[in-house]
Parts: sequence; structure tokens; C-alpha cells
Amino acid sequence: MRILSSDVHEHIGKEITVSGWLHKKRLLGGLTFISLRDRRGLVQIVIQNKDEVEKLRGMQIGTVLEVGGTVKDEPRAPGGAELHEATLTVLVPVTEEPPIEIDKPLSHKSDNLDTLFDYRVIGLRNLQEAKVFKIRAGLLKYLREFLTGQEFVEINTPKILAGATEGGAEVFKVDYFGREAVLAQSPQFYKQIMTGVFERVFEIAPAYRAELSATTRHVSEVTMLDIEMGFIDGHENVLDMVQDMTHYALTKTYEDFADELKSLNAPELVLTKKFPRYTVAEIHEMYTKATGTDTTKEKDMTPDEEKWICAYTKEHDGSEAVFVTHFPVEAMKFYHRVNPDDPSTVMWADLLFRGVEIATCPQRENNYEKLVEQMKKAGLDPEHPGYKYYLQAFKHGLPEHGGCGYGIDRLVQKTIGLANIKEAILFPRDINRLAP
Amino acid sequence: MRILSSDVHEHIGKEITVSGWLHKKRLLGGLTFISLRDRRGLVQIVIQNKDEVEKLRGMQIGTVLEVGGTVKDEPRAPGGAELHEATLTVLVPVTEEPPIEIDKPLSHKSDNLDTLFDYRVIGLRNLQEAKVFKIRAGLLKYLREFLTGQEFVEINTPKILAGATEGGAEVFKVDYFGREAVLAQSPQFYKQIMTGVFERVFEIAPAYRAELSATTRHVSEVTMLDIEMGFIDGHENVLDMVQDMTHYALTKTYEDFADELKSLNAPELVLTKKFPRYTVAEIHEMYTKATGTDTTKEKDMTPDEEKWICAYTKEHDGSEAVFVTHFPVEAMKFYHRVNPDDPSTVMWADLLFRGVEIATCPQRENNYEKLVEQMKKAGLDPEHPGYKYYLQAFKHGLPEHGGCGYGIDRLVQKTIGLANIKEAILFPRDINRLAP
Repeated sequence: MRILSSDVHEHIGKEITVSGWLHKKRLLGGLTFISLRDRRGLVQIVIQNKDEVEKLRGMQIGTVLEVGGTVKDEPRAPGGAELHEATLTVLVPVTEEPPIEIDKPLSHKSDNLDTLFDYRVIGLRNLQEAKVFKIRAGLLKYLREFLTGQEFVEINTPKILAGATEGGAEVFKVDYFGREAVLAQSPQFYKQIMTGVFERVFEIAPAYRAELSATTRHVSEVTMLDIEMGFIDGHENVLDMVQDMTHYALTKTYEDFADELKSLNAPELVLTKKFPRYTVAEIHEMYTKATGTDTTKEKDMTPDEEKWICAYTKEHDGSEAVFVTHFPVEAMKFYHRVNPDDPSTVMWADLLFRGVEIATCPQRENNYEKLVEQMKKAGLDPEHPGYKYYLQAFKHGLPEHGGCGYGIDRLVQKTIGLANIKEAILFPRDINRLAP
Repeated sequence: MRILSSDVHEHIGKEITVSGWLHKKRLLGGLTFISLRDRRGLVQIVIQNKDEVEKLRGMQIGTVLEVGGTVKDEPRAPGGAELHEATLTVLVPVTEEPPIEIDKPLSHKSDNLDTLFDYRVIGLRNLQEAKVFKIRAGLLKYLREFLTGQEFVEINTPKILAGATEGGAEVFKVDYFGREAVLAQSPQFYKQIMTGVFERVFEIAPAYRAELSATTRHVSEVTMLDIEMGFIDGHENVLDMVQDMTHYALTKTYEDFADELKSLNAPELVLTKKFPRYTVAEIHEMYTKATGTDTTKEKDMTPDEEKWICAYTKEHDGSEAVFVTHFPVEAMKFYHRVNPDDPSTVMWADLLFRGVEIATCPQRENNYEKLVEQMKKAGLDPEHPGYKYYLQAFKHGLPEHGGCGYGIDRLVQKTIGLANIKEAILFPRDINRLAP
């Protein structure tokens, strides 16, 4: 029976069998030491017998092995134990050296990302690299766990759409049986429609943006968590839900993956149960006062302000997550709800975390007539077939609702402290990269 | 504070507030009765006061209401209680009649599917229709729960690919910044690559097939669960895992959604812990003997045989799920593993459930040289850029592995007993339908 690396120390004095990939090989004091990698980590193995050592001749990192041996206590080995008197079976020989070293700390910087992704298939076998994606899976699990506990129903909505429905932004075109279709930039319309059925829905799925710029923040295929909730009693309800979900997922992940996060040099988590909330106007004023750079004439937040406010709330409010509220009406999308108490602002908040926007969390306009009016004002045609079904949901009654589009890749990036969003994605896509 | 429909009976004698959608309205013995729908179900409400009744004048099904009233014991009402002396607030007026009746049992048949989907946005508000998608969300939750418990790591892989990699089958083309790309038919290559990192991975994501035929089994955008596991000790390991996962998800779902499944007239679940396994050749023989139709010359299973074997195992083995093993080598894909004990068959099994194939569960060829040879034999060029990264994973060591592509839509369809796969999808896509 195969014993996994993390269980080896439970078998001291016994003969066991392990299997995995040859991860490292070295000669030390006349003995051959190898590290074997499996899904849980590494086992250190000492090969004393010359015939057994001979089996490794020409075998490179990546060779798949089954190894028998006796477990010895060894405090310096991973897990505090190692295998002695090893006997080897080569399951899959590898005779070519790996194109990159995989037994190294995570050292990729934004300046050698092309190398990172050219050798991604092998590079992910780096234990540090793999931790990024274990943490990612953990975050996804806890986000879903929270939402399911709050009666959000998981939905799957189509990613091939009849036409550009949100207007303006760049979309990818698909040849759909000879007709032109587009790839969904978000499940916005569908999740709003679905509040009419389940009140609360969520979806975790790919979304597509034909981003022409190659920055550290943009990729053309992202994983989005989309949430929408109906029968809210004000915009604050939406922010509370997004806040509680974020707090749950982050604290759970920091508990479960404490060792992984530490070894990746992830920052300590500084978070309050209630995230601070500031209006865009307040931040402009605070930032101008603090930095001497006048942003009070700006409508939107500047990237530097996003960084600044997160640093500020970390220090003053004890939270690296902060909501920026009351965006100016000039920046609104047609389906946002204008603030009835101040029509120069819209009921739209961004969740920032460690200097970047993780989620956009607006309340929607749920009145059919007002929505049609806002569409026309935005230069859109409510009669366009792309809007027909969407408007049907409002005509037949949608309650007050709001939600968020939550960037999973950005959350992973910022949780771990990766320089580039692409490092948080297994096989990223941008204007220059379509492989692997 | 808003009380949800399922909690109303806990407040007998008290004044409470509920909110939801006007679902039904009728006059009975001089009294006005309404049903209010919320995310949990229905509340029955009696309106005695004429001024309150007047507020509903012209208000159609779908109107969003907040209703105050006193809870009375009423065994004939849903939940055993109803609201009396109701006072109404119209939150969102709806003045147009719904295009279809939503307060009816689920009656759609394959012959009026176009009507079903033309009015899908409103039709999903039918309580029966909504149950289908609650059950779907439940199945997804339990599939993930099982896999996470077995150390499968969730991955997200790109759906925009550089070129058709699996050869042959119809793919959708995407204009990727002026270059031609395609939509992924499956994450096949990526999940195999990822066994080299995590041994066990899974993904639940959309997959795309440009299906030219409009049948009850085919759609162009499906939701697939893809699983892959390394360090297997024979093909049986894969089947055991898929079997245990299916057993877990189905039994849990049948427990949790017992009422919903019953009200949808879903069949009783007939399942054994160990699913019966028959070879294709055995089934040809059994079927020929039983029906008099000779299929012994057939290579693949016929659709009628798929139905027949499921009925047979239900009766004789106590299981509606059955593995069909040892597919003939003629039907293999280049990445399948040929059966070393019988080169006329391939280590590929299908999981059938209630008459259709739910999952394809092959073992893969993990030897680099053999794989390249099989590619060439299949007429594929191993030097093609689409294969470069895939082959890299093998060259640097992949253990014996296998997995499955598991159709979520088919699973939902068959669990509930829906006639057409499209009924298991919120907003299906086929050659004729790209909206809503």
C-alpha cells in the first residue's frame, strides 16, 4: 500500500512503500539522497545499495518512482523521518533534464514572466508554485461555503451571447453556426433575472474581456464570482454580505493554509469584522490633504488613491479591506441605481483589498420605467433583441437588488502578495499569450 | 423584520411582515386570498379590509409586495399557517399579465420547448421549474464535497485555446485579437498536465461543442465536471472513484431534496454501493439474446443497448448506474490506454445512468513514446504547437492516470427524469437558440 509523504513519520521502524516524482538527487558523504515528491509534499530517501543507485543512472528530475524502505527518525528531514535501505522501481523513466529548475524558492518577478509561462507545465511542479493554486482552491471553497450557508443558489449561465449587451467595452466574437455571437463579459443580466426566481444567486465562471493593454492587472480570461441578492433593505445590505463573505473566506484560508502562506511570504492578514467605508469624495479630500496632489476634481479613484486608502485604513482602521462608496454619477452604467438622496452619486461601491479593486458592488435600478429611461440616456436601444429578455424580468417584477462582480484572480494575487495577476492563474491569457 | 415563508408557522398569534411576489389571487366566499412567493416557497394571505383589497386593483402576478398581518393556524395552507387582516404595500407594481401561467405544475413536454425557452425568464418563477435548479445546485455541491474530501484540487483552466487539439470534432472559432482561436471542448490536456502537479484535480466549467444536430441529448454549451487522478493502480481505481462520487452525490441529493424530487415525480433511486460492470462484448451478447436484435457485430454501444442495460441492471443488480467497460480499440482517442491484456480493447469505460451515458472514464497512455506513436497513428502531428505543452508534461514524467468527463446537465436531467437535456439548463444553447 502506498504511504503518502506526510504520513511517513507515523511508520518509524516499519517497511513502507512510497511513490512520486524524483524531485532532487545528491551525493553526500558517499551516500545517495533523493527527495521524492507526491501530492502532499516531499519524502527524503537514502539509497545505500549500489545496485539501487545504479537504477537512477541517466534518470532526470521528474522520473516517476516507487520506493520501498525502512522509516527512520531524522529530525532534519521533511516530516521528521526518512526512508533507509531504499529499493527502487522506475515507473516512468525521464531522460531529459527539465527545461527549468523546479527545486527552488518562488523567485519569478514580473520581468521574467514569459519564461515562467513558457515553462508553466513543468514550473507548476515547484512546490512553492503549487501552493499558490492550493490556496486558490481553498479560497473558492470557502467563498462557496459562505454563500451556500446564506441561501445563495449556484447557477450556470451561458457564456455565448447573441450580442454585446453591456455596450461599449471590447468583446470577443464567436462564429456561432455562421452567425456572429460574443463571449460574455459577465453574467450581469442573467444573475439579475435570477433574483426573480431565487432572490439570491451566485456563479463562479470564466468571463472574457478583449483587453488591448498588457498590464499587471489585466488578462483576457478571468474567473469571476458573481453574486446577486434581492429584497435588500438598502445598499448597505449588499456591502455587509460581501464584507462578511470576504472576512469568512480570508480568515478561513489564513487558518487552513497558514504554513503555505508563510512560506510564500504572504503578508499577515489585517482585517476587521466590519470593513471601513469611505466615499469617493472623502478619499479625494483625505488624499489631497495627505499627499499634496489635488484629486478633488477627479471623478473616479486614481490607482494611486486605491493604494493610499488601503494603506491608510490598514493603519487607522486596522483593515486592509475597505469599501469606497458613492461613486460619481458620471461613471455609472445604465443598470446602476442613482442615489435618491444625492443624484450626483450612484449606489455603487468598490471593495478594495491591499491596494486594488477586488469587487464592484452596486445596487441596481429595479424600476422598469426608470431602467428604460436610463438605457435611452446611455444611448442604448431598449428594443434591441439583446435587451428584450432582460427587460422582461423587470416588467414582471424584480425587487430591490444588488450584488457584486468579484475577481477571483485578483483576490488570489493579493492574498498571497503576487506582483502580477497572471501569477495567480494556471494558464493565463492576454493579448500576447494564447498558450500553454 | 422580514419573515420568510417557511418560518411563518412559528409566529402563530403574532403580527409579522412578509415580502415577495404576488403569485396567485382569488376571491373565495367574499374574501380575497393571495399567495405570496419568496425564496423559500409560498405564504397564504387573507385580505379582509376593502381598502387593502383595492391596492391590488390592476396589479398582476409578479407584483412585489410587503405584507403585514397576524398569523393564524390553518392546516390547509402551505406550512400550516396563514396571514389574516393583511395590510399591503406595493413595492414594485406589475401591470402587465405574465406571458405564461406560472402557477401550474411542471407540464412542459419536448413538443413545446420553444415556448418554454422563449418565456424562460418568467417561466423559471414556476415553483416546480425552480426546484430543478435547486436540485442541480445541490448535486454540484455534493460532487465538490466528495472530491475535496478525496484530496482533489479544484483548478480553473482556459477555455480559449490556440487551436483544435483533440482533432476532428466541431469547434467554435473565436477572433482572438485578429488571430484564430477556438473554444475548449474539454479541459482534457490541462487536467492531465495538472496530475503532474497535484495528482488529483477537478474542474466544473463550461465546455463547447458545435453540435450540428438538434436532438434531446445535445446542446452547444454544456457544464462538465472533469476529474483526473494520478498514481492509480489500474483502471478500476478510476471507476471506483467515479462510482463512489456518484453514489455520494445522488444519495445526499435524494436525502436533502426528497420533497422536491417527489413533487417533480422523479423516479425512486435504485443504487448499489458498487455499480455493476459489464464489457461492451458482454452487453452485445446479452442484448442480442434478450431482444433478438443482433448487435454482436457492433463496435460501439447502440442507444437502445444503453437503455436496455440500465433497465437490466436495475432489475438484476439493483442499480440504475452501470459501468460499460472494454470499449473496442477502433473507437479510441489517441490519449487512451490500449488494454495490455487484450489489444482489441481500450481501457475506457462509460458510466451509464437511467439509460444514458453520464461520464466517459478512460485510463490514459502515460508513456511519452507510446503516446507520440498513437498520435501519429491517429493522423495527428506531434510537432503541432497545440500539442507541444501537452507532450512536455509526459516527457518530464506523468504517472499512470485516468479520469472522467462527467456531464452535469445529463446528470441533472436523469436525476429528475426530464425528457430533454435542455430542461436541465437555465438558458440552453443549440444550433437554433442563442437567447435568452
